[in-house]
Amino acid sequence: MKSVKVKSPATVANLVCGFDILGLCLDNPCDEFTLSLSDEVGVTIENIDDYDLPTDATKNVSGVALLKMLDQEKDIKGFHLISKKIIKPGSGIGSSAASAAGVVVAANHLLGNKYSKQQLVDFAMYGEEIASGAKHADNIAPAIFGGITLIRSNHPLDIISIDYPELFLTILHPQIEVKTADARNILPKEIPLINAVTQWANVAGLVTGFMQHDYDLISRSLEDVIVEPYRSTLIPHFYEVKNACKESGALGGGISGSGPSMFMLSKTAEIAVSVELAMKGVYGKTGIEFHTHISKVNKNGVSLK
Amino acid sequence: MKSVKVKSPATVANLVCGFDILGLCLDNPCDEFTLSLSDEVGVTIENIDDYDLPTDATKNVSGVALLKMLDQEKDIKGFHLISKKIIKPGSGIGSSAASAAGVVVAANHLLGNKYSKQQLVDFAMYGEEIASGAKHADNIAPAIFGGITLIRSNHPLDIISIDYPELFLTILHPQIEVKTADARNILPKEIPLINAVTQWANVAGLVTGFMQHDYDLISRSLEDVIVEPYRSTLIPHFYEVKNACKESGALGGGISGSGPSMFMLSKTAEIAVSVELAMKGVYGKTGIEFHTHISKVNKNGVSLK
Repeated sequence: MKSVKVKSPATVANLVCGFDILGLCLDNPCDEFTLSLSDEVGVTIENIDDYDLPTDATKNVSGVALLKMLDQEKDIKGFHLISKKIIKPGSGIGSSAASAAGVVVAANHLLGNKYSKQQLVDFAMYGEEIASGAKHADNIAPAIFGGITLIRSNHPLDIISIDYPELFLTILHPQIEVKTADARNILPKEIPLINAVTQWANVAGLVTGFMQHDYDLISRSLEDVIVEPYRSTLIPHFYEVKNACKESGALGGGISGSGPSMFMLSKTAEIAVSVELAMKGVYGKTGIEFHTHISKVNKNGVSLK
Repeated sequence: MKSVKVKSPATVANLVCGFDILGLCLDNPCDEFTLSLSDEVGVTIENIDDYDLPTDATKNVSGVALLKMLDQEKDIKGFHLISKKIIKPGSGIGSSAASAAGVVVAANHLLGNKYSKQQLVDFAMYGEEIASGAKHADNIAPAIFGGITLIRSNHPLDIISIDYPELFLTILHPQIEVKTADARNILPKEIPLINAVTQWANVAGLVTGFMQHDYDLISRSLEDVIVEPYRSTLIPHFYEVKNACKESGALGGGISGSGPSMFMLSKTAEIAVSVELAMKGVYGKTGIEFHTHISKVNKNGVSLK
């Protein structure tokens, strides 16, 4: 039976000032999915990890995305998925997006690559919807396109790849739970116009900094006056970590997606290691369990294994 | 006596979604300033136009900017300015910015070009302040830097030049008065977060479109959900003009600065001419006096004549 195996990467959404519009694809960690065409109608799922995720396709992020693709296919009965999740659900680095993005790219290979990347994002968003309650593309787009992506519009979907210089990310994952719904509800519905102007000036600066490969401009633009003041309260020792990382040479950083993970951008691998030590220095004293890791930007997104 | 003559161009601030942060320099119209070192202490002003602007330097936009520069100079007694305004004050295409920007660039030439462009913007902003009551750089920055500029921050000043493809502007200047203060006061102090996200997505799209020379992306991003819904009410037949221009092939456009002028961006000179005809078609029936003109983007800003 025809079968394809993919690696589906973690992602960082928002990138500080780019709330709901910017995202970046990580080299690691990656989930692994093996997808086959099946004679059984619908989507069958076999989990080979310890996360005890639903095997009922209608309740599974990967399953829902695949069912949405199946709806478009007359000549195919079903898919069989072997799912090995590596990216811990709820970590804030796009675990559900990896589940949805990985399987739609795999399915597209089985279908002769008939769909564009933007169409694949659209399918995958149905999976994201059952995970977070909203059809957001800010993790799915970088997972499928790779690199750094801008979502100019969700309806209609308008995704643009943005050039960037070499960047290293250091991730801190405190082992606490931040529910996406809580992270949404903590935000104000209305914001001062003057702060919004500050934010879009920084968004424009960040995008320009990426495209002009201007590290100083990237660093100056990594400022969030809208979301971070609220969401940082959900992450213990947020500003302590951030300040220590910047003192260790990080360009800047903040909350990954809706947290609890934090990320920092650095110009070199050496600085990223210093930044990791700074994170460990702060969090080592808190009594909160945590993991850290370093990743480059993944320019390819979901890839065949 | 050492003397220098400059042409100081009109500018378009905001560029639809980029309220308070983006600006663009026009090829025409341009003011003309002749500046000389003077043995008289302070700034003397001679107007050779019909606008009856103040000759008291402390009440004159050019004068205030020059006085600010004089404050820094020990070896120079004063400046004599011959001012020929071409850009009509109150038109919304940066008339006061041209007055301030032109003379500080001229003075810098007389002083051996000791100041950076960013420092010159800083001096010129003092002139802008007496015209509009606020130290805004969104017209001054493109007038001095040329091309398209991003003001990432006003305090400290952070101006970035942005690459762009060939663009033609068609300007409509209805002969009505829109006071900058009224255009400011009509804006809400608070805006919905969801609209702010739409706006910064379009700002990021517009900047990316300029830098990637992607006309379609520029066109899709020329959308303003924050400011235009309010300020357009101050400009008669705004949406009628906008729709007619887009039907004639314009990429998009909107209010220039705080109005009353409108501008439209086009990919070619031919389309810019069609757009001008569309403007004339709409405004010709309104009974309101108006002027139109076409300009390319001026990549140099204020220049020696």
